[in-house]
Amino acid sequence: MPRLSLFLLTFLLVSQTEAQQPDAVIRSIFNEALTDTTAYHHLRYITKKTRGRIPGSREALLAVEYTRQALIDAGADTVWLQEVTVPHWERGEEKAMIISDESGMRELTIAALGLSVGTAQEGLTAGVVEVHSFDELARLGKEKIEGKIVFFNRPVDNTLINTFAGYGGAVNQRTQGPSEASRYGAAAVIVRSVTHALNDFPHTGVTRYAAGIKPIPAAAVSTMDAGILSEALKRDPDLKLHLLLTCKNYPDTISYNVIGEIYGSSRPGEYITVGGHLDAWDNSEGAHDDAGGCVQSIEVIRLFKKLGVRPRRSVRAVMFMNEEMTGTGGREYAARAMERGEVHYAAIESDRGVMAPRGFTFDASGERLMKLKSLAEWFEPYNIRDFDQGGGGSDIAPLKQLGTLQIGYIPEIQRYFWYHHSANDTFEQVNIRELQGGSASMAALIYLLDIYGY
Amino acid sequence: MPRLSLFLLTFLLVSQTEAQQPDAVIRSIFNEALTDTTAYHHLRYITKKTRGRIPGSREALLAVEYTRQALIDAGADTVWLQEVTVPHWERGEEKAMIISDESGMRELTIAALGLSVGTAQEGLTAGVVEVHSFDELARLGKEKIEGKIVFFNRPVDNTLINTFAGYGGAVNQRTQGPSEASRYGAAAVIVRSVTHALNDFPHTGVTRYAAGIKPIPAAAVSTMDAGILSEALKRDPDLKLHLLLTCKNYPDTISYNVIGEIYGSSRPGEYITVGGHLDAWDNSEGAHDDAGGCVQSIEVIRLFKKLGVRPRRSVRAVMFMNEEMTGTGGREYAARAMERGEVHYAAIESDRGVMAPRGFTFDASGERLMKLKSLAEWFEPYNIRDFDQGGGGSDIAPLKQLGTLQIGYIPEIQRYFWYHHSANDTFEQVNIRELQGGSASMAALIYLLDIYGY
Repeated sequence: MPRLSLFLLTFLLVSQTEAQQPDAVIRSIFNEALTDTTAYHHLRYITKKTRGRIPGSREALLAVEYTRQALIDAGADTVWLQEVTVPHWERGEEKAMIISDESGMRELTIAALGLSVGTAQEGLTAGVVEVHSFDELARLGKEKIEGKIVFFNRPVDNTLINTFAGYGGAVNQRTQGPSEASRYGAAAVIVRSVTHALNDFPHTGVTRYAAGIKPIPAAAVSTMDAGILSEALKRDPDLKLHLLLTCKNYPDTISYNVIGEIYGSSRPGEYITVGGHLDAWDNSEGAHDDAGGCVQSIEVIRLFKKLGVRPRRSVRAVMFMNEEMTGTGGREYAARAMERGEVHYAAIESDRGVMAPRGFTFDASGERLMKLKSLAEWFEPYNIRDFDQGGGGSDIAPLKQLGTLQIGYIPEIQRYFWYHHSANDTFEQVNIRELQGGSASMAALIYLLDIYGY
Repeated sequence: MPRLSLFLLTFLLVSQTEAQQPDAVIRSIFNEALTDTTAYHHLRYITKKTRGRIPGSREALLAVEYTRQALIDAGADTVWLQEVTVPHWERGEEKAMIISDESGMRELTIAALGLSVGTAQEGLTAGVVEVHSFDELARLGKEKIEGKIVFFNRPVDNTLINTFAGYGGAVNQRTQGPSEASRYGAAAVIVRSVTHALNDFPHTGVTRYAAGIKPIPAAAVSTMDAGILSEALKRDPDLKLHLLLTCKNYPDTISYNVIGEIYGSSRPGEYITVGGHLDAWDNSEGAHDDAGGCVQSIEVIRLFKKLGVRPRRSVRAVMFMNEEMTGTGGREYAARAMERGEVHYAAIESDRGVMAPRGFTFDASGERLMKLKSLAEWFEPYNIRDFDQGGGGSDIAPLKQLGTLQIGYIPEIQRYFWYHHSANDTFEQVNIRELQGGSASMAALIYLLDIYGY
């Protein structure tokens, strides 16, 4: 009799949970996300107290420790750190000055590119050649480039509605420009900030020196000052630019991915990952890029636990380290998963800012894509309608080797590049309701994916 | 022969224009809007140089003159002012102080409600009764309310996804609360700011004294300080509040709607109106509410003229005066239209902020609504997908008497009430790309409506 009662009780409890309609669960997720203030405090701490958290920095380790504790507080069944090898680069001083017999001296607002080498201690002074493409650079050739500072000034195309496509059309000047210019003997590179905005915030970002190429100093100039430099060159093509960068690369060091997990109720060996990256550019609070994505991932854990939503599969929130420089955090996470033979069913990345939710992109096709798109109906009450084909993100991309479904969280993106990689990416630029709409969206999607297994 | 040539030339020109595919026209509209800076400068001027432009103010007249010139510069075929009778109210000084034997003195951040009467010159000091609904107020009755300050503290429901619905669920405390409290002999009213945000910006807005009711002084308190006042009342129910408001109503005065028109090519007597309101609360730059809507309407004219898009119907951009207080601008516009026997086919209102475009609402049903919704296909390349049933807005509502199709421009609305009616509604809170997505959307919709005549 007692045994039967226990059986009955268990049966009733399970039925009750399973009988709960998905729309009611999703509603409870949104209600909790939109009325709780935990995420607000997390975002404030990470942005204001760990500003400067580039990979290899003390600030990044502070962010690691803070989010580890936040995941514990969120109720994760287990929380751990995953060691990641990361670059150690320091920005130092950065100055650029136009010196022109025609128009005098004029300081420019610049930011060294991540992983850039520095100039000599006294800086360097050289003539400037403005170019807009690598083709143009090649046409000018060694004769015109050698010993000069190459100024890449191709703007972002503002007519492209997808702002990431606009960014993508200009960003090779930053990632490859210094290497390309170095092939022709350039002394240094100045890159127009890769942003849709016309303002005085220089946007940094990583540059990648090609193997066998002499690394040369490189910095981004604000779009306003790119205009000023370009005008100055029209008036005085012989002007000189004095450039001082004391940035420096040090030996690689150790940092961590931070992982919090909820054990799956019936398929604990299968994983759904949701993540953002914890590192951010040192000249920025990194609120949209990507403290927000980390906070949303912590919120997914908190929402499930607070509401007693128990997924069948294990759910992991991951704060990836070193997305911005060399992507070792994402690769490490996938490598450890392969080593352990984990089954990774799906992964969602939030790294496109934390503006109001619009939907998701799925790296799928055919019938699977149709099924995934059909999940949009659950989000209609929340005005989240964009369920489209598309990629996940760079941190979860290494999981593709495990056959993991790649999902991108898509917020409103029109204003993202006003903040991206610049000092303008602050806590104050995030609206907490917009951020939390994203947390709820991702929790709801994970809940639905776990039920339906598309 | 010359006559025939002229005929042929005319025919060819007309054919060429008409042969232009709608998708190409819409693309050109978006390209121009997203790459031009006129709107940016207009928004800056209106927000920064005409701050304080409540109806009846000198600042409102500056805004009238500025936008009149802006419409001329945009290329409108004719621009004129339409006289509107408006209230004249001045804010003056505003102060509120908790006086408690338990917890001492504490100043609260308040903003007088628009059209509120002031206190006596020395202010008033009275006990405070916190209520959350008019029912609760009625239950307490004259016995508990008489001579007291009624503190309406019902928060906005953050779980409602439609933020305007959340606002609508709390705003009667501001519009009717003072009248309702006065019925029971209250001395004054303090209203929790009607916003989703928890911060220290008080949100003002109009209060409407019912006929035959004694008007009593009324102010909004920031949501942070509403919490503090509520806590203080729990500790010391006998605390007093000292309230000083020197706001004052003066005799009605004159201001203007500003109207710019493009003559229709073949149906000049039929009108499509696009508008926002030029007045804004005096404690605010009124960037989202609603300088942005005005700038977008001016842009519609500029875009049509710049691109040589000639509508068959006449298109009017209207900067309505006095939306915020008594709505006389919208009523005047409709009254003049009726007087002149104008045919007003459709009107679009932009007064929900100028965040990124999401779509439009149409006050239509059945087959007409289906046809209007089908226009969404043209907006797919711009990721503008929300074509739904819904209202237009308060300034164009009086045109309903003329059978005018009412259309609301719908941007992303999750963060709107962080700004609305407060000092936080600044130029800096507007992203110009998001605003211009709206200008282009409205121009494109007008262009399509004019072609299809749904």
